[in-house]
Amino acid sequence: MSPFLRSVTVLLCAVLLLPEAAQALWPQPRNLQTGSSPLRLSPSFTINVAVPNAPKDLLAAADRTHALISSDKLGRLVVGRGADDLPAVRRAKALSGLTLRLGSTAGAPRPIAKEATLPLGSRVEGYSLVVPADGSVAVLSANSTLGLFRGLTTFAQLWYTANGTVYTLSAPMAIQDSPAYPYRGFLLDTARNYFPVSDIKRTLDALSWVHINTFHWHIVDSQSFPLVVPGFTNISQKGAYSASAVYTPGDVASIVSYAGARGVDVLVEIDTPGHTSAISKAHPEHIACAEATPWATYANEPPAGQLRLASPATVNFTVGLLSAVAKLFPSTLFSTGGDEINARCYQDDAQTQKELGGKTVAQALDTFTQATHGALKKLGKTPVVWEEMVLNFNLTLSNDTIAMVWISSADAAAVAAKGFRFIHAASNSFYLDCGAGGWVGNFPGGNSWCEPFKTWQNAYTFDPLANLTAAQAPLVLGGQQLLWTEQSGPENLDSIVWPRAAASAEVFWSGPGGNVSAALPRLHELGYRFRKRGVRTIALQPEWCALRPFACDLTA
Amino acid sequence: MSPFLRSVTVLLCAVLLLPEAAQALWPQPRNLQTGSSPLRLSPSFTINVAVPNAPKDLLAAADRTHALISSDKLGRLVVGRGADDLPAVRRAKALSGLTLRLGSTAGAPRPIAKEATLPLGSRVEGYSLVVPADGSVAVLSANSTLGLFRGLTTFAQLWYTANGTVYTLSAPMAIQDSPAYPYRGFLLDTARNYFPVSDIKRTLDALSWVHINTFHWHIVDSQSFPLVVPGFTNISQKGAYSASAVYTPGDVASIVSYAGARGVDVLVEIDTPGHTSAISKAHPEHIACAEATPWATYANEPPAGQLRLASPATVNFTVGLLSAVAKLFPSTLFSTGGDEINARCYQDDAQTQKELGGKTVAQALDTFTQATHGALKKLGKTPVVWEEMVLNFNLTLSNDTIAMVWISSADAAAVAAKGFRFIHAASNSFYLDCGAGGWVGNFPGGNSWCEPFKTWQNAYTFDPLANLTAAQAPLVLGGQQLLWTEQSGPENLDSIVWPRAAASAEVFWSGPGGNVSAALPRLHELGYRFRKRGVRTIALQPEWCALRPFACDLTA
Repeated sequence: MSPFLRSVTVLLCAVLLLPEAAQALWPQPRNLQTGSSPLRLSPSFTINVAVPNAPKDLLAAADRTHALISSDKLGRLVVGRGADDLPAVRRAKALSGLTLRLGSTAGAPRPIAKEATLPLGSRVEGYSLVVPADGSVAVLSANSTLGLFRGLTTFAQLWYTANGTVYTLSAPMAIQDSPAYPYRGFLLDTARNYFPVSDIKRTLDALSWVHINTFHWHIVDSQSFPLVVPGFTNISQKGAYSASAVYTPGDVASIVSYAGARGVDVLVEIDTPGHTSAISKAHPEHIACAEATPWATYANEPPAGQLRLASPATVNFTVGLLSAVAKLFPSTLFSTGGDEINARCYQDDAQTQKELGGKTVAQALDTFTQATHGALKKLGKTPVVWEEMVLNFNLTLSNDTIAMVWISSADAAAVAAKGFRFIHAASNSFYLDCGAGGWVGNFPGGNSWCEPFKTWQNAYTFDPLANLTAAQAPLVLGGQQLLWTEQSGPENLDSIVWPRAAASAEVFWSGPGGNVSAALPRLHELGYRFRKRGVRTIALQPEWCALRPFACDLTA
Repeated sequence: MSPFLRSVTVLLCAVLLLPEAAQALWPQPRNLQTGSSPLRLSPSFTINVAVPNAPKDLLAAADRTHALISSDKLGRLVVGRGADDLPAVRRAKALSGLTLRLGSTAGAPRPIAKEATLPLGSRVEGYSLVVPADGSVAVLSANSTLGLFRGLTTFAQLWYTANGTVYTLSAPMAIQDSPAYPYRGFLLDTARNYFPVSDIKRTLDALSWVHINTFHWHIVDSQSFPLVVPGFTNISQKGAYSASAVYTPGDVASIVSYAGARGVDVLVEIDTPGHTSAISKAHPEHIACAEATPWATYANEPPAGQLRLASPATVNFTVGLLSAVAKLFPSTLFSTGGDEINARCYQDDAQTQKELGGKTVAQALDTFTQATHGALKKLGKTPVVWEEMVLNFNLTLSNDTIAMVWISSADAAAVAAKGFRFIHAASNSFYLDCGAGGWVGNFPGGNSWCEPFKTWQNAYTFDPLANLTAAQAPLVLGGQQLLWTEQSGPENLDSIVWPRAAASAEVFWSGPGGNVSAALPRLHELGYRFRKRGVRTIALQPEWCALRPFACDLTA
């Protein structure tokens, strides 16, 4: 073949490969235009933060983006890993820089961390990104530093590396992006089993790479209470698994700051009045049916134990505890939990029966909740609750209370009918722990309660608006996948979460309706990129398939 | 409480805790007698290999055992992690040493690696271990270095550490142990996705810790051919995923030697005539229907491709290839595979149709198999095959051929009826990949073909003799769990395998019939110990449960 024909062929190949090349972005931008020209990154490529008085966390994000672009070294997921791209790439224009511009704002720009913790609905996450093919600088624009951060995250995903050259085959590119839903979360339970701070930070990085904006931290539960709460330090002293399995206020501040700088709000949950057995170690006076047996009579999971919700002293204690915790977290959201309240626990607790004095548990729960929510609202917090608090007890909840639908996504309609805003977190689609065996000790079959395993495809094909009226649609704030950790720890954190948790990230950023077959090549790329960045994402297919998009579809 | 009463209480506690203390062993020894005295390890504890001309790998195993005992630092799995044991332990006798004795053998003792690769049924794996309570030296006796190795593995599991002191609460101990079944294996597929040598070695260590004696290495398949075979190097050159994703003869020698020193035989599999598409990259002349589409017509998994079994040249090539591979492995076992042969692949291959010349595929397969098995037998190998080779084609197989039952354990009876020895490796109990999503690209539900997830309880309650007559029982050589790696890689190797693969290790060492509730505390201990040794075993329960045996049983 003549050199001329060869170069024509190479260019032609580059064009034909374009659809794959553009598949690297996850979540998919809402508006994406790509060309077919190769473009390489200049070895002297710089990110210019053209933002007067740029906050430190934006400058740091630009630095991290620059570092990732050179350290990712991701070969394109094709046979040969992009080696065939090199002739065309060597002749391509070089991109010398990316300029970040902030739209007109009153006063100095706010840190990303500040914008990431604004009330839901008031955050500005959109951005636009233009990457010309002719070598002139790329421009990332947004009306908030948070939007610029999202754009940097996308920019970092555009690049492949072959033989030391960083490049794309899809220039020019123009992206206009903003999320379909304001809440895109991930829940981690650090009470069933403990996770060191380093695991949480690695997870926060990963969340930020797919535009997830909320780390729902189910930080304590009946099994252990690892949070060291100022003024209540005896709870963790006696209720944590060990003196080292705790989160000090310094750890929390470090995690909150790490999250904020990555556009992630930390929604802490202190589950009440159930799921509180661990508190009994330091405060037996506040816990009914503590470690009562048989546990299955008194709780869905051992050990049993619930706050004595009818006790004025316990209400007072809980208000104090929640207020002290709330002060550790800048988020406007705070979850008081409220799931799986066991009636029998209170029936069999003589003190509670006496303190109820003829009132029902629901009535006492109403008083309890108004006290805790009232205190939180004084601290500027919007209460978040599990669905039972909206559906089961006829409580007086303020209109802005946010419900989490967890038992089944079929319950979303009932929550919407009550007029509450809510978050999709349903076990039938989003529970990452399901289907890989159960934790109960003496089940010969060893099944989990929420069989089967929730595949990424299950989460990816979720319809947030199913069974809702058009008028109810605005009540959907978004959704999240969840890791309850009865059978997880640092050992399998990455492998049980990734890439599955990326599925809901795309559903709630890009909007639902995606096709699993079309998504898979992009999800492979995300996984391979995550691994380069130190997150141990599992394989979804043999590498033979990952290098040949669609070749392992059943119809291929 | 007076000091006297306190010490009485502590002793009483030690006695009461005994059943738990003795639970640390996995697999459970066949005969185990334990006392109730604490015994601590002397800081100057030594292992004395009183074996004249002791082979190097035995001396190295003794050194590793000594190192593990001090590095494990496993706190007993009770609340407080054994801190309450200390007063009694401080007053306990100190064990100064363990002496290894070998029963009378003719000539110099053989290395562990030699004894581990003897023919199945002729290996001597039993040992006896006595640990006195009075501080006199412990004695480990066996009639083979392999038996001594198994005993060392057990000895290393006896110890807890609290505050720097290594101890047991169960002295004196007397163990008489030997396996119920001669074959206890684990299969790893390194073809769907590649695993570095270090992952394989870590896995070999873990296998040896539970007396698993065979690493069934499904080293190549249609997706990739990572094995560098002397004389056939072009196959891996073109058929491996990359130049670095290979196992050189040096790697193989290193793995075989590492395994042998740990009492593990390496049973290599070159699956034929199916599962060979990767060979087509270097030798298209030998492969029918190579990468034919739609793949589902020609194979159970892409890419399609089978050896042209009716071609004399291909038979010759295969004999040469298998012989070259066989020379890399000292094992007396060699698997030629034989699963999932696709009829349509040969129907549509003009060359095969011509070469069949009126013969059936089964007839050609018979000739093919007699050629490959004949060559292997000349090299001293016993052929191992997947169940179809016994059940589906009416082949002439030598009587000593070993079958692997994989499709369903229900097929064991049919294999036994044919009179062949066999190994339990059935998907319905032992496939570690099942139930966590499928690998096919365009399945919206994403299920795997062998739902549901195979829990450890499922494997643990397996009955090797189900549906067999008493006369057929001796045909059962043992069993294994298997990891097919369509959705696995180094990222989740430990978490998908452990502790589940320990379940079959106990079934086939200790014998079946174990109770899952009783086993769980021991399995926790194994998992916690594995983590101390660098194997990322997953949690099976919240730590709250792991520290309180049986408290999370449904009836507790």
